[in-house]
Amino acid sequence: MSILADTPKPPYYAVIFTSIRTAGDNGYSETAHRMLELAEQQPGYLGVESAREDIGITVSYWTDLESIKNWKADAEHLEAQKTGRQLWYESFKVRISKVERDYGI
Amino acid sequence: MSILADTPKPPYYAVIFTSIRTAGDNGYSETAHRMLELAEQQPGYLGVESAREDIGITVSYWTDLESIKNWKADAEHLEAQKTGRQLWYESFKVRISKVERDYGI
Repeated sequence: MSILADTPKPPYYAVIFTSIRTAGDNGYSETAHRMLELAEQQPGYLGVESAREDIGITVSYWTDLESIKNWKADAEHLEAQKTGRQLWYESFKVRISKVERDYGI
Repeated sequence: MSILADTPKPPYYAVIFTSIRTAGDNGYSETAHRMLELAEQQPGYLGVESAREDIGITVSYWTDLESIKNWKADAEHLEAQKTGRQLWYESFKVRISKVERDYGI
């Protein structure tokens, strides 16, 4: 994930997931990798950007709210969310937002 | 910046700034630090979250679009944006988005 997401002209949606991890891997890395792989296959998926330092930030981009809802309800993803709450994250926040404008170089 | 932003109940706005840096510091770190300091003092500022790995992601949160517009037009910030385009960033993207919903632990 070393490049910026090539998203279309707005509007589209961004899911901003920020987190603080607990100590130890505990299977996190493998699942995180698998979730990125799975997300890419979902209808409405537009791209992802991710970085971790003191905190982790993963922003995934989607065509619409329905696609975000469906991805949240994916069975394998639900299992990962459960383990995330119980084991991997000390705290996290998910923000669903609508991208209204963008620019860059 | 080791904690998650303590934002109010939505709606509010998120500016998602993702970037790839050029090689060398070239004064970047000092200016980046100063910009965070300045941003905090702006009307409508709600918080910031930031991490850099292969790419950098900084998400700043704001009460409304007017506050974002005013911060973008700040004289010292304009100067930093100019140097960013010329010197610090190989590529970047700014996405202005409206946070409609959030949850977390």
